[in-house]
Amino acid sequence: MAAIRPLFIVAGIGNAAGTGAAAARTFSKSGYSVALLARRQGSLDALANNLKGSGGDAASFCMPSYTPKDFTSTFSAIRSHFPASKYSLRATLWNIGFAIEMPFLQVTPEEVQESLDTNVSAAFAFSHEAILQFKQNTVDAENPARGTLIFTGATASTRGNTMTSAFSIGKFGARALSQSLAKEFGKDDIHAIIDGQIMTGSALSNEKPPSGLSPESIAQSYLYLVNQEKSAWTWELDLHPAHEKW
Amino acid sequence: MAAIRPLFIVAGIGNAAGTGAAAARTFSKSGYSVALLARRQGSLDALANNLKGSGGDAASFCMPSYTPKDFTSTFSAIRSHFPASKYSLRATLWNIGFAIEMPFLQVTPEEVQESLDTNVSAAFAFSHEAILQFKQNTVDAENPARGTLIFTGATASTRGNTMTSAFSIGKFGARALSQSLAKEFGKDDIHAIIDGQIMTGSALSNEKPPSGLSPESIAQSYLYLVNQEKSAWTWELDLHPAHEKW
Amino acid sequence: MAAIRPLFIVAGIGNAAGTGAAAARTFSKSGYSVALLARRQGSLDALANNLKGSGGDAASFCMPSYTPKDFTSTFSAIRSHFPASKYSLRATLWNIGFAIEMPFLQVTPEEVQESLDTNVSAAFAFSHEAILQFKQNTVDAENPARGTLIFTGATASTRGNTMTSAFSIGKFGARALSQSLAKEFGKDDIHAIIDGQIMTGSALSNEKPPSGLSPESIAQSYLYLVNQEKSAWTWELDLHPAHEKW
Amino acid sequence: MAAIRPLFIVAGIGNAAGTGAAAARTFSKSGYSVALLARRQGSLDALANNLKGSGGDAASFCMPSYTPKDFTSTFSAIRSHFPASKYSLRATLWNIGFAIEMPFLQVTPEEVQESLDTNVSAAFAFSHEAILQFKQNTVDAENPARGTLIFTGATASTRGNTMTSAFSIGKFGARALSQSLAKEFGKDDIHAIIDGQIMTGSALSNEKPPSGLSPESIAQSYLYLVNQEKSAWTWELDLHPAHEKW
Repeated sequence: MAAIRPLFIVAGIGNAAGTGAAAARTFSKSGYSVALLARRQGSLDALANNLKGSGGDAASFCMPSYTPKDFTSTFSAIRSHFPASKYSLRATLWNIGFAIEMPFLQVTPEEVQESLDTNVSAAFAFSHEAILQFKQNTVDAENPARGTLIFTGATASTRGNTMTSAFSIGKFGARALSQSLAKEFGKDDIHAIIDGQIMTGSALSNEKPPSGLSPESIAQSYLYLVNQEKSAWTWELDLHPAHEKW
Repeated sequence: MAAIRPLFIVAGIGNAAGTGAAAARTFSKSGYSVALLARRQGSLDALANNLKGSGGDAASFCMPSYTPKDFTSTFSAIRSHFPASKYSLRATLWNIGFAIEMPFLQVTPEEVQESLDTNVSAAFAFSHEAILQFKQNTVDAENPARGTLIFTGATASTRGNTMTSAFSIGKFGARALSQSLAKEFGKDDIHAIIDGQIMTGSALSNEKPPSGLSPESIAQSYLYLVNQEKSAWTWELDLHPAHEKW
Repeated sequence: MAAIRPLFIVAGIGNAAGTGAAAARTFSKSGYSVALLARRQGSLDALANNLKGSGGDAASFCMPSYTPKDFTSTFSAIRSHFPASKYSLRATLWNIGFAIEMPFLQVTPEEVQESLDTNVSAAFAFSHEAILQFKQNTVDAENPARGTLIFTGATASTRGNTMTSAFSIGKFGARALSQSLAKEFGKDDIHAIIDGQIMTGSALSNEKPPSGLSPESIAQSYLYLVNQEKSAWTWELDLHPAHEKW
Repeated sequence: MAAIRPLFIVAGIGNAAGTGAAAARTFSKSGYSVALLARRQGSLDALANNLKGSGGDAASFCMPSYTPKDFTSTFSAIRSHFPASKYSLRATLWNIGFAIEMPFLQVTPEEVQESLDTNVSAAFAFSHEAILQFKQNTVDAENPARGTLIFTGATASTRGNTMTSAFSIGKFGARALSQSLAKEFGKDDIHAIIDGQIMTGSALSNEKPPSGLSPESIAQSYLYLVNQEKSAWTWELDLHPAHEKW
């Protein structure tokens, strides 16, 4: 009987230099098959090819939008490509973000809506699908958790500021979600985690990690967290470059 | 020349026993004209009559929904009723909330949307209208701030928990908004404040304050905060009943 | 039968421009008799005379040091001057602080000791004496609390930083004390509060409030907090000048 | 030329089942020589023998007390035993704590003093010696930091509570210290970290980790943190058992 292979889903792939791509590479090297989700086919295919070129197992799933319906159908497509007989979903990374930086009075209702849709509602729907899959797993020596949900955070996840009203309403919401999940599903061996990337510049985009923070280092921390034994789980950890003021 | 009378807008009037109604009574007694906003005509009229019966000046504005468009037209209607020649808007209370308590997997996308629409987008639109009005004011001996925005908080504003995923995504967002406004508009003499009502029961509704917390006491704290001199402004204060564990 | 007069104890009087002196004046005007504690006779006498000159009732108690033993004897001296038959202690302000700002490696063990002695041990001993007195009070219409302990905070109460290791170890400790007291004694109608003065300059001294924060405004907030009804008590509130970045 | 071996100092060894002992075993297995510090010779020797029996390199240093002077002489003794020609100090664990749980009014001044001496002053002196040693190191491929200081935290590090006034004044202080060091020495490639062990029972002792939290799992997190690349350092992470309410 063939072994079941662990699957990692990354939602939010920008360019090769971003956190999503780095996490995909890190988990791929560590033995995970990887499903890549984003809205741009080009970025997805480039990364999938790159992973496969390095001996990894990867597939890309281009999403028309980040609505709940699209997450349901995308998870279904992932399940077809990586069937339960051979793969078990063990970790997800929510790395999608709609970043916006402007004075409060210039923010339009549409931008508010997009921030909440992308940063919160989509994360909610994605987590729903992931947890339904995790519930089908069992824990064993290799897998201390049935599944781990990781959320990419930002300074704006914990601090509102001038220029970030529209962004922080969304990032605070995603942090609330991750904490609620951590508390509700810990007893089911499902682990939810948020990192608090401390931004030192004005880079708000999830595609471009904050100045100084290396995506590879962030990805290493994700891999560590996925492997934490369940007697000592972390919900939140801050990450900041050693040499910068925070 | 007649003096300009201060106006207080309360968004979110449930029943007479709630925080919104108590704040309306407290500010009315303290000399404010009061504009009451909610979706149910009955509650609004009962409170407006009650305030007028006690010698106050009040008017109710029933809103079909809490969309940005409706806030724009409602602020316009308030402006007609309380014209700038006689009234200046000096304080607002955001007391609207969509409270929901259920296991994460049972929350529907529609409920996520409603939580974000009501708890965050509507608060954003309401604040937008309020700040535009505040900007027209000047500060003087009577009015240390051009205007003060108060937000009713909850335990779920700072802590996600089992059963509160759908509620806390919205309340965290409103807290992010209030902090962003406090930081962006302090230099313009506009004061944004959130209270952190520490709930001791499961009462999540904004109509019914948490067990033990008296709406009149909460309203007293709001009146105090509106009068803080601008050399020492508060953004957040916790409120909890003396006799309960927190 | 003569009415019982409320007594306010302020520990930490620097010069007339500080928070301690402002609180003494504010509470004096509001009808409290005031006991002033500090180590320098000159400052104490000047303020006591000033309060008496404005029609207040005040006495100064010069302390040789801030050891537990000295607080016991000073509270005993206060009790003699303001006997229980005529006065009841209703509020205290802990405004003593040992501020120190220097690189970690230059801090001597003596400075660590002094920071902990002054910022924490002395606050502990002072609170012990105050609570013993509060326990003898009853609550009534005039006095919503048996007694209120207020602690002057600082940015260093919640954030360690370069240059503030020796100061923040003490200020964090005093904040821990205030929260423990708030939780332990709320059910006994004893109210403990800390303010979080957000410093904008490097002024760390308790004698000199942070740049921009007016002592009179801070004192007003203390008076408000002492009068909070016990269904909605605050433990911590931040204070910062409206016009400064925080 | 022989390679320089990394040295790990653990201060605070209780029994074999505690966090200090688990960290010593974990770092020993990972290739560190280990210096064990505590006040009881018996515990120290048992652990040192155990480590040596498993092929490790360890030595114990019994301290008469935890005064600054004793830390200076103990670091000097460690330096003699593990000379700079062969060993470089790369990580320390501050695992000493004086835990005390009792009603505020029963706490004596001596207990306040002991809590501050042991939880704060001693940690300050220990960190002083460690940083002086770290400053002599260089960073290289194997060692992303010149040195790493880890502090064992507790629920009482971030929350005061009934019964924990005397304990939390000390644990808050140690947290302030760790944050000040993280901010002051990050630019020098020296990494300071605190874990936030979330206690679920009343176990306050550092010798006995909180119910449910396994010392081995905690130790694994320490080893991970020591190896974080310096572009993404963590200052604080929470640790709690997956199955318990927090």
